[in-house]
Amino acid sequence: MHGRTTDGTVRLEGNARERFYDSRGYGVPDGAALELAPVEAAHLLWREDVEDVDGRDLQAYLAGEPGLAVRFLVYKDLRDRGFYLAPAERWFGHETDVDFAVFPRGEGPWGDAVEYRVRVVGERDDVPVTHLGDATLAVVDEESEITYLGTDHETVSGSSAATLPSGVSATLVGDRVAVPDAPVELYERAFYGQPLDRNDGGDLQLSLLEAAHLAGDVLDIDRESVVGKGRQVEGERFDRRLRVYTTLRERGVVPKTGFKFGADFRTYADVESVDDLGHSELLVRVVPDDHVFAPRDLALDVRLAHGVRKTMVYAVVRGDEVEWVAVRRLTP
Amino acid sequence: MHGRTTDGTVRLEGNARERFYDSRGYGVPDGAALELAPVEAAHLLWREDVEDVDGRDLQAYLAGEPGLAVRFLVYKDLRDRGFYLAPAERWFGHETDVDFAVFPRGEGPWGDAVEYRVRVVGERDDVPVTHLGDATLAVVDEESEITYLGTDHETVSGSSAATLPSGVSATLVGDRVAVPDAPVELYERAFYGQPLDRNDGGDLQLSLLEAAHLAGDVLDIDRESVVGKGRQVEGERFDRRLRVYTTLRERGVVPKTGFKFGADFRTYADVESVDDLGHSELLVRVVPDDHVFAPRDLALDVRLAHGVRKTMVYAVVRGDEVEWVAVRRLTP
Repeated sequence: MHGRTTDGTVRLEGNARERFYDSRGYGVPDGAALELAPVEAAHLLWREDVEDVDGRDLQAYLAGEPGLAVRFLVYKDLRDRGFYLAPAERWFGHETDVDFAVFPRGEGPWGDAVEYRVRVVGERDDVPVTHLGDATLAVVDEESEITYLGTDHETVSGSSAATLPSGVSATLVGDRVAVPDAPVELYERAFYGQPLDRNDGGDLQLSLLEAAHLAGDVLDIDRESVVGKGRQVEGERFDRRLRVYTTLRERGVVPKTGFKFGADFRTYADVESVDDLGHSELLVRVVPDDHVFAPRDLALDVRLAHGVRKTMVYAVVRGDEVEWVAVRRLTP
Repeated sequence: MHGRTTDGTVRLEGNARERFYDSRGYGVPDGAALELAPVEAAHLLWREDVEDVDGRDLQAYLAGEPGLAVRFLVYKDLRDRGFYLAPAERWFGHETDVDFAVFPRGEGPWGDAVEYRVRVVGERDDVPVTHLGDATLAVVDEESEITYLGTDHETVSGSSAATLPSGVSATLVGDRVAVPDAPVELYERAFYGQPLDRNDGGDLQLSLLEAAHLAGDVLDIDRESVVGKGRQVEGERFDRRLRVYTTLRERGVVPKTGFKFGADFRTYADVESVDDLGHSELLVRVVPDDHVFAPRDLALDVRLAHGVRKTMVYAVVRGDEVEWVAVRRLTP
């Protein structure tokens, strides 16, 4: 059977509908004929169900359509995994920002359900943070292996709360804040700061974020001088991180540094005492709302989070608002 | 006892030598008196062995000397771990680019041996790649926790070798290269490429790096067109990566993509067959010789490599030369 392209659609005549749509979910029927998207035509070329498209074999056809090689690899992989799928615009309209509608296993374009909304991404493509949240990324690396990343909008909340004293004296020391003879609640109950000596809870070191959050209410230190120091050493990144830090604390979640994991924060949802902390649940990376990821950085974050049994969450700061997007490895 | 500063050195009179040098390794004796570096004086202030330095208490003293707070935290941590240590310039001269000479446990400034050459780094400091290789980084994060990273120059070699056919036809397809009906040795023995279908080794997909390396000798494809495509999609990064790829192959090491680990390559030192691959040993990230790390990115790479039981190696490209630097988590 031969395919012929008109207006970006590949037409198969004869009994194509019966052979490829009715039982295998390719294309859009037109009487007994079938209209295919290029990626569907490429797959039928690969299966040798179609001999050529406009006289071209698979490699020539893939080479002739920009981006088709990468979309084909993902389409084929999902078919190999037992899914039927359709080009997204056929399912969601031309406004869609994803590439494929993937149907639940055992279902197809005849039904209503969609299991995954898949966006195809090459290893070298940019991924704006605004593209995360309700799509599954299928990242095709330079060796044509595919990594699936599920992205979801997330709500973040916890039950941590502690009553703290006020008027605690504190001093800015370089790019951190010292609290000599700190009240025991500060660290032991609310998990602020780090004791200078583990055997003697008296002297605490606070980060600039912790100190800025506590300044005025709890700490007797000028908030502006703490925030000013933060901006001096981190620029506007400090304000973004402080916004996220504050939002987490307000929601009953305790953020501590995620440095050892390469993140901004690791978080504990239910802190009653540092002696009974439990496992931190999230790794949080703070990004501005115009942030653009390299797919490899996403892969790195998500792989690390998975390895330490935490969920990778991006805190996207837009003015005073914070949106949370979780990204997880996924096997369709 | 009171300290007094002259020319950047803190002097303790009385029996200071006997109390602090002879048994505990602080400072440089001058008769019965003792000359201390600021970080040593800070530690004695913290221990309350010294009441004040120039009338200042610990917090005031730390706040008054730029960078001292961070150096003090590392000095104290190493003392807490049972080490004696000295300011590096006292040991290695003023030309040194590290901060502390740390003596083996049980030894001190009276002996000759140095266990660690420690460079103190704040979380927000820049770390030029040229500073890695013969120093231990002590990274102090914003919450005053310390992560130690050992850095070593590394030699990289392996025993992978395979005889390959020549004149294999190949086609550039987008930003990858297709090899239809590839000879079996290419993938099975030498681990080039990725079969388009795992159940049928016939069609291989090669990365641009693999294809550029094989072009001419093995593949019947124009090397310049492959390299040109690489530069088009990656810029000069492609040349650096190709230099490292080629060097690894020449040394008998097989590089495959490190995408899932956020690196350029994972490597196999002794490939005889893909059916018997074993564990990949290294994660390699390619950097130019003027690269500057954020400490957090180092922490991320090293933590991930540790979690997957591999060694993190930076391939530093300087013209046609490649230097290898391994970075590992370390507990002194």
